[in-house]
Amino acid sequence: MSVSPFDHPWLSALLGDDEIARHFRPEAELSAMMIVETTLARVQSDLGIISADAGRAIAATLANFRPNPAELSAGTARDGVVVPEWVDQIRHIVGPLHAHDVHFGATSQDIIDTALILRLKPSVAALEARLAELDSRLSQLAHKIGAQPLQAYTRMQPAMQITWADKIGAWRGPFLRHLDRLRELKPRLLVVQFGGPAGTLDKFGDRGSALVAAFAEALELGAPDAAWHSARDSITELAGWLSLVTGSLGKIGQDVALLAQMGDVTMAGGGKSSAMPHKNNPVAAEVLVALARFNATQLSGMHHALVHEQERSGAAWTLEWMLLPQMVVATGAALARATSLLEPGSLSIRTTTQGRSDS
Amino acid sequence: MSVSPFDHPWLSALLGDDEIARHFRPEAELSAMMIVETTLARVQSDLGIISADAGRAIAATLANFRPNPAELSAGTARDGVVVPEWVDQIRHIVGPLHAHDVHFGATSQDIIDTALILRLKPSVAALEARLAELDSRLSQLAHKIGAQPLQAYTRMQPAMQITWADKIGAWRGPFLRHLDRLRELKPRLLVVQFGGPAGTLDKFGDRGSALVAAFAEALELGAPDAAWHSARDSITELAGWLSLVTGSLGKIGQDVALLAQMGDVTMAGGGKSSAMPHKNNPVAAEVLVALARFNATQLSGMHHALVHEQERSGAAWTLEWMLLPQMVVATGAALARATSLLEPGSLSIRTTTQGRSDS
Amino acid sequence: MSVSPFDHPWLSALLGDDEIARHFRPEAELSAMMIVETTLARVQSDLGIISADAGRAIAATLANFRPNPAELSAGTARDGVVVPEWVDQIRHIVGPLHAHDVHFGATSQDIIDTALILRLKPSVAALEARLAELDSRLSQLAHKIGAQPLQAYTRMQPAMQITWADKIGAWRGPFLRHLDRLRELKPRLLVVQFGGPAGTLDKFGDRGSALVAAFAEALELGAPDAAWHSARDSITELAGWLSLVTGSLGKIGQDVALLAQMGDVTMAGGGKSSAMPHKNNPVAAEVLVALARFNATQLSGMHHALVHEQERSGAAWTLEWMLLPQMVVATGAALARATSLLEPGSLSIRTTTQGRSDS
Amino acid sequence: MSVSPFDHPWLSALLGDDEIARHFRPEAELSAMMIVETTLARVQSDLGIISADAGRAIAATLANFRPNPAELSAGTARDGVVVPEWVDQIRHIVGPLHAHDVHFGATSQDIIDTALILRLKPSVAALEARLAELDSRLSQLAHKIGAQPLQAYTRMQPAMQITWADKIGAWRGPFLRHLDRLRELKPRLLVVQFGGPAGTLDKFGDRGSALVAAFAEALELGAPDAAWHSARDSITELAGWLSLVTGSLGKIGQDVALLAQMGDVTMAGGGKSSAMPHKNNPVAAEVLVALARFNATQLSGMHHALVHEQERSGAAWTLEWMLLPQMVVATGAALARATSLLEPGSLSIRTTTQGRSDS
Repeated sequence: MSVSPFDHPWLSALLGDDEIARHFRPEAELSAMMIVETTLARVQSDLGIISADAGRAIAATLANFRPNPAELSAGTARDGVVVPEWVDQIRHIVGPLHAHDVHFGATSQDIIDTALILRLKPSVAALEARLAELDSRLSQLAHKIGAQPLQAYTRMQPAMQITWADKIGAWRGPFLRHLDRLRELKPRLLVVQFGGPAGTLDKFGDRGSALVAAFAEALELGAPDAAWHSARDSITELAGWLSLVTGSLGKIGQDVALLAQMGDVTMAGGGKSSAMPHKNNPVAAEVLVALARFNATQLSGMHHALVHEQERSGAAWTLEWMLLPQMVVATGAALARATSLLEPGSLSIRTTTQGRSDS
Repeated sequence: MSVSPFDHPWLSALLGDDEIARHFRPEAELSAMMIVETTLARVQSDLGIISADAGRAIAATLANFRPNPAELSAGTARDGVVVPEWVDQIRHIVGPLHAHDVHFGATSQDIIDTALILRLKPSVAALEARLAELDSRLSQLAHKIGAQPLQAYTRMQPAMQITWADKIGAWRGPFLRHLDRLRELKPRLLVVQFGGPAGTLDKFGDRGSALVAAFAEALELGAPDAAWHSARDSITELAGWLSLVTGSLGKIGQDVALLAQMGDVTMAGGGKSSAMPHKNNPVAAEVLVALARFNATQLSGMHHALVHEQERSGAAWTLEWMLLPQMVVATGAALARATSLLEPGSLSIRTTTQGRSDS
Repeated sequence: MSVSPFDHPWLSALLGDDEIARHFRPEAELSAMMIVETTLARVQSDLGIISADAGRAIAATLANFRPNPAELSAGTARDGVVVPEWVDQIRHIVGPLHAHDVHFGATSQDIIDTALILRLKPSVAALEARLAELDSRLSQLAHKIGAQPLQAYTRMQPAMQITWADKIGAWRGPFLRHLDRLRELKPRLLVVQFGGPAGTLDKFGDRGSALVAAFAEALELGAPDAAWHSARDSITELAGWLSLVTGSLGKIGQDVALLAQMGDVTMAGGGKSSAMPHKNNPVAAEVLVALARFNATQLSGMHHALVHEQERSGAAWTLEWMLLPQMVVATGAALARATSLLEPGSLSIRTTTQGRSDS
Repeated sequence: MSVSPFDHPWLSALLGDDEIARHFRPEAELSAMMIVETTLARVQSDLGIISADAGRAIAATLANFRPNPAELSAGTARDGVVVPEWVDQIRHIVGPLHAHDVHFGATSQDIIDTALILRLKPSVAALEARLAELDSRLSQLAHKIGAQPLQAYTRMQPAMQITWADKIGAWRGPFLRHLDRLRELKPRLLVVQFGGPAGTLDKFGDRGSALVAAFAEALELGAPDAAWHSARDSITELAGWLSLVTGSLGKIGQDVALLAQMGDVTMAGGGKSSAMPHKNNPVAAEVLVALARFNATQLSGMHHALVHEQERSGAAWTLEWMLLPQMVVATGAALARATSLLEPGSLSIRTTTQGRSDS
């Protein structure tokens, strides 16, 4: 289907991002869930929480496990989350001897949330690399055209003359801060979720924190001070960061569209119109604005989802699922579109020093 | 892919709605676009705006037209909208003699917007039917359990005793108003968009309004007073209506979840937990809350998209594409989930008149 | 204080609206509450629900009642709503004989909500009058400059030439629909709220609906089918309407700011800059955009407030108080600013038919 | 006036915060603007940018300057910002000899934004102190009641037994992270804005950065790498932080309201009802939810304001003014309400180990 543009055969070419979106494909999700459950069994076996036999049986089963998709779908409709049905299928294959050791002491949220973090980690790394690339692109552009004069506009009216270096500098500033922000938030975000039914590691007595530490280490994630099943601030902080990034890109897009309207820049290979083939539309610039406003919209819902009732809110948690993946992909798309937009040869600037007569 | 839950193999079973979502599949979109373009050619031929030969050639081509998907995707990335590339492909097949008559006097927005309205029409009809069904379900429920006593809660504290008839009446009230609102907005919404490049029907001289009238009649849609290419209020009004509906359903969901927590109702076939098989979770009730908050979130973006620059805003228009289809599907899903939730046999109420000791 | 620009000594001159804001002043609120309580007592006395003596005593007390402000404030902090303390003060003055008949069978929400509707009625009437005035202003403008040519822009690029009549027609279209929408929603909105503690009119037996009818008639409001204490759809529908109006005005503002940037219009008396006295900034146009985005933002919260728990949600109700008054005032301000902006002599258009060389 | 609850005589007692709101009073704003302008003149005089005489004349004038309020209001309506009129009044008093040296090389945004930061600094410090106090309150509460058993709820259904220490630990976790986040964002936020008309320090040649450094040092703020007139990410980051804090508090409020409904806690001095005096409503808990949803709503608008056109967007900047002050005050209010709610003696817990029969 294609209710969302990010899942749409041709709109995703405009608005989507395959490199990021692949982390949100069902197969990537199932694969991450399998890694989480396998790692849990291995670590529990290492710590003697389940037997070595159980650990081997679970690992062998999961290595080849292909869940029944129709049942996953029916289970999700019934349970509100895919895990109970998925675990049932695994337990059925593992067989009665070790079924009890599958998913031992865990709850659905441990699996879903940790599997999400496992996929956010490469997503965020890809975004970080693109931020660095964008910054380098802006630096090149400043090097190339920075000395050229440019009309400044304040309150939509011609102000004074600046240079392209000034403009590019104003665009670039936030991205260096965004990189700092990302470095700061990653240790909070990239941590396992593990707590069992009520987040209290109740099945593990005094071995709980050792288990979490080993589980985190095996997954190459951090170990949080406590389960965050009902404390979604770091997930929401990421959402805010995504929207800060797209907002800064939207500002570039808005500026480029306005510069194009004034004739200060021309888009090489801009979009054409079905009615007016002569046109050269600043499509990528407009897309940056649309993606900025999209994320600014979604972010509000992520903050509402902080009001997470008690030890697990079905409503608030489900709302995150509807918002966060699209925000990540939108951010990836915006970075990709911006980097293309700003590449030498894409934007041509008006090089005459004479501005419009009225400026 | 499945970045959105509405396009996801198992989350769509929880949050999606196939009957509504099919109107937003790419094939449905292409089919609607083809109907729009075919109808335009036929009506223009009838009015002598293009020749009868051209009309026949275009109709014949479109009847069998299968666009090249990779090129549609590349064209959308370039042009910001699929139409220019799609029209180019049609013109190429129609051949040089009549190519000029394809899409004559039209612009991308005429095709996309009218094709959207063609699909919103059955979507909205399905929602209307479900609203009527929900109302009837609530009426049955009131008939069955209305006389039973129920603890009222105000500000989350036990207030006085009411009856289930009171509760169901409070739930039902808004839906009758929503049906009125839908009847009022449909004539504004279900109209063709046709205006050409700048919305002025510039190619048609004094035949413009006759063309729009005939075009609308042929599509069984209304003819607006003027093109609404840059006036998106009726689309946004629909979005508001969708969110009013899901908001009223979210209130039911929140009430049911709270009633379930207090033990005033039990969910037959409620969701189970991977850790606590004895549980009987009010999954559908929580989903109603999540969908309500989802639409409340999206609606804000639709209102931002009213600030539509000049004769066509790429940014604001694109933003609509990212929001509206998901809102329609979310509303369909909420109505479907609510109707199941309220069916006799799904909800069991506590029939004893003794409440909790502190109420 | 002045945390909000609508309550700020100089920002309110830019963003506020005294004529509308006065309905949200504390004295207007207290006055409306007094009218509600007085009317309730009179109608209950007429129907024999309370004695004629009680009715007279209450009316006499309320006619001269000046509540103790510090106690109102303390009571609100304690009770979450001003009514319990305010009623206590009234009962104290009325004295023990008739104290019980004050606020008989009513609850806080009956008073607050009906007093809100009493003030929304003239607010909405003022907005309606301004919509009509704006429409007439647009009509005059079209008459005056409609024949003048104007460059159309699609996707921020010059498209074809249109006329000012086309532009003004595109601006005007939504407002005629907004007037229709307002006519449709008013009968749903302008109704009393009366239901008692749980909305069930429990104190009144079979006289409940007669009481509501008489109460509504006396207040010149409609009588709803049922109490809407927990069904906030009509309040939220109004919020949506307000944001549709400001959205359509924001589109005009955005267009004017862009036209000013291109030199297609000049603002007589536009704002000046502290650094560049030669500038002529399209301040009112920008304000329209800001107010549109403000309302688009607030609206989301109003839709979240539809998820109103049980028989009265303190949280959702309180949220409305934080959002709706500002939305009403923002809409009034936007209409006032737009009407000034569009008056002959405010906007000067470039009358030459030659556009920019690149269009 | 009192369009906003934060400026309202009795609603501010419920929802407002005097200690924070005072930084947003007009007199505080004028005072901060005066400090900014005075400091600028002093630093410019020290650096020889303006003469020592000019510096003294300006300082003397500003020390006693009382602007004409009616003219400030009229100027703001005309110019979209108060500074041009305010500077005109100052220049008039300073007299022709030094008028030119007043506000030398500065623009409105330099004054407004730096004056905002000067007031955000103590606001944020107050919030930081309250976060620390809340954490200490939670720590005391855990010490006092941590060992007591408590029913956990997942998906609104009884799950397993936990302890109050578990619950309080889950509440407390985010606030430690919020303190970290605040420490990280402060160096980005608490910096001067100074750039002149287009942000390029054009009047100062090679002395620009020395001036900014001295100006920042004199104001005890940081010196940014570049003017941030059009790069609003750090302001918006603060808004996100505010909403993270209120979201975490809203989660506590929602939990307390649900615990109160289940009878697991009782509110000492909870709010009463005008109709049901026996009730003990969890008013402060509900207020926390309302404030969380309020900030979650406003935040979206702040992110839209990142799309800041060109060298200064009147629209986006104005939108910030409408949102940020209310968010800061809402956060202060939420912290104050939460700290009271959690004080020993406010919440009573049910100490029996027997839960409800159905849990």
